[in-house]
Amino acid sequence: MAVASIFSAVAEGVHRVEESLLSVAEVEHPQISALLRHVLQTEGKRIRPALVLLSGKLGDYNLDRLVPLATAVELLHTATLVHDDVIDNSHTRRGVPTLNSLISGRATILIGDYLFAQSAVFATKSHNLRVMELFSRTLAKICDGELRNVSSSNDGSKSRSEYYRTIEAKTAALFVAATQSGAILANLPEREIQAIGAYGYNVGVAFQIVDDILDFVGDERKMGKPVGSDLRQGTVTLPAIRLAESFPDDGILACIFEDSIDDAERERRIKRVVEMVVSSPAIRLAREEALSFIREAKDALDILPDSDHKRSLLALADYIVERAY
Amino acid sequence: MAVASIFSAVAEGVHRVEESLLSVAEVEHPQISALLRHVLQTEGKRIRPALVLLSGKLGDYNLDRLVPLATAVELLHTATLVHDDVIDNSHTRRGVPTLNSLISGRATILIGDYLFAQSAVFATKSHNLRVMELFSRTLAKICDGELRNVSSSNDGSKSRSEYYRTIEAKTAALFVAATQSGAILANLPEREIQAIGAYGYNVGVAFQIVDDILDFVGDERKMGKPVGSDLRQGTVTLPAIRLAESFPDDGILACIFEDSIDDAERERRIKRVVEMVVSSPAIRLAREEALSFIREAKDALDILPDSDHKRSLLALADYIVERAY
Repeated sequence: MAVASIFSAVAEGVHRVEESLLSVAEVEHPQISALLRHVLQTEGKRIRPALVLLSGKLGDYNLDRLVPLATAVELLHTATLVHDDVIDNSHTRRGVPTLNSLISGRATILIGDYLFAQSAVFATKSHNLRVMELFSRTLAKICDGELRNVSSSNDGSKSRSEYYRTIEAKTAALFVAATQSGAILANLPEREIQAIGAYGYNVGVAFQIVDDILDFVGDERKMGKPVGSDLRQGTVTLPAIRLAESFPDDGILACIFEDSIDDAERERRIKRVVEMVVSSPAIRLAREEALSFIREAKDALDILPDSDHKRSLLALADYIVERAY
Repeated sequence: MAVASIFSAVAEGVHRVEESLLSVAEVEHPQISALLRHVLQTEGKRIRPALVLLSGKLGDYNLDRLVPLATAVELLHTATLVHDDVIDNSHTRRGVPTLNSLISGRATILIGDYLFAQSAVFATKSHNLRVMELFSRTLAKICDGELRNVSSSNDGSKSRSEYYRTIEAKTAALFVAATQSGAILANLPEREIQAIGAYGYNVGVAFQIVDDILDFVGDERKMGKPVGSDLRQGTVTLPAIRLAESFPDDGILACIFEDSIDDAERERRIKRVVEMVVSSPAIRLAREEALSFIREAKDALDILPDSDHKRSLLALADYIVERAY
């Protein structure tokens, strides 16, 4: 199934989500409105809203409830990106200037807070207590994970289990919330809600692994940033961990994090690690892990009756991991 | 009625709120836990939780619902303080070091986000859709107000109506949410919910005016900051506006905001404005405005039957404005 046809089933819903997102940018002050439009418009695929809507398609497809929820999920995602950019002091994202590079860090914090607030407002428009509980617990999980990260030592010694714990909070939790709340609002039976949540979890983990692979082997123009950006920001991801595992005694990543070296030397070391990752089996191993999560995601849907929309979810899972090749 | 006896009626509830707040500080990393305890423990009166609980006392007093909501309100308040301190780059609050002065601005943003998230989690524990809607709209109103502030020009030309619009969002909105949601959870009739909300609004406005008066005439040791701190941060409040109104052509505040002067000169000008405010009728006029809001607050409760708890709310309103003398 082609990507276009996966998304075409929910095109009207995604369009309404875009309208809702633009309505969030309508604030009193024209300059702030322009900044909000800047962060809310994206070339991205709106994969999280699409997941809410596709999950909703499996049952009673009520756009009046699903669209606010899908909007809330995308707003929450955007709010975390905005604060992340202040925290990481990033100046571009996908080649587009971050808010942080356009205005003061202070105003950026407030714009992130505003997006969090609007996300809560849209979540309540689902008029469903269980969805709102799921939503607030997800926000808490994401923030918990970020706090854990900021307080963990940064010496390159991350284990695979620490990596998975990080991306569970950073990415998979919101995928679970997106898919499960779509299913809840569609009045699916509990067993199917759980199955779709398991699908969301596994797709979310795979999605992040693929992102982390692309940071080593992706097209720099498409990404709008040089390869190795994660390492440059001190973030150790699966491909680098896989490389380090094959040289257990060499502290191959620790050398990047040494305090005593200057920026030029650090950059040389980062480039060397990137080359080692790319020329080693690390990328293949990481792809295999992503694939196994995709298999789990698809298996989770076994209990659902066959339908066009189930096939869309299966195709979406495949599409996510194909990006890594 | 003495302050102690106002609060004694809800002492058990406030105690349980303190426990909930401490539970929020229990995170994996001991250093972050210590920081969270640092911001969540306060010498303050917990006036917002007390308002939730006192409003709840007017009807079915169900602590299992009221305590989470009162906790959510206090967490939301604390989260905004934490982000404000990054935004204003403040190093102390009430004489206690701010998070911002102890750790990086980056970690402070995350701790604020974590508190927002926990606030949402506790709000959902009220298991009441209307309360959650009220809560998220309040958060949105607060963030809206902050965005408006950051984008407004800073030349000292604030009008009284702009001032009231600011403090409505900054302070009164959360007082409305606290009192109304207490009343909603206590199953009061709609008319009484509205009346208690009006009480909350007026008490909230008066509370902020009193805070702003104390910034000119308060005891520096008790406040833990020198008088004139608001002006020093570029915030023009009612007493200064009242002074400016009596010298309409003199741009008496604009002189503080001139770009061309150095810090020492700015400090001299701030001190002069503070002295002028204190020796003019500005403070008396501001007190009278606070008092008129307190009268409105008390009048709003006229429709409620007489009870000990109504008398506590009336006494609390008086207490709030007494702080200004």
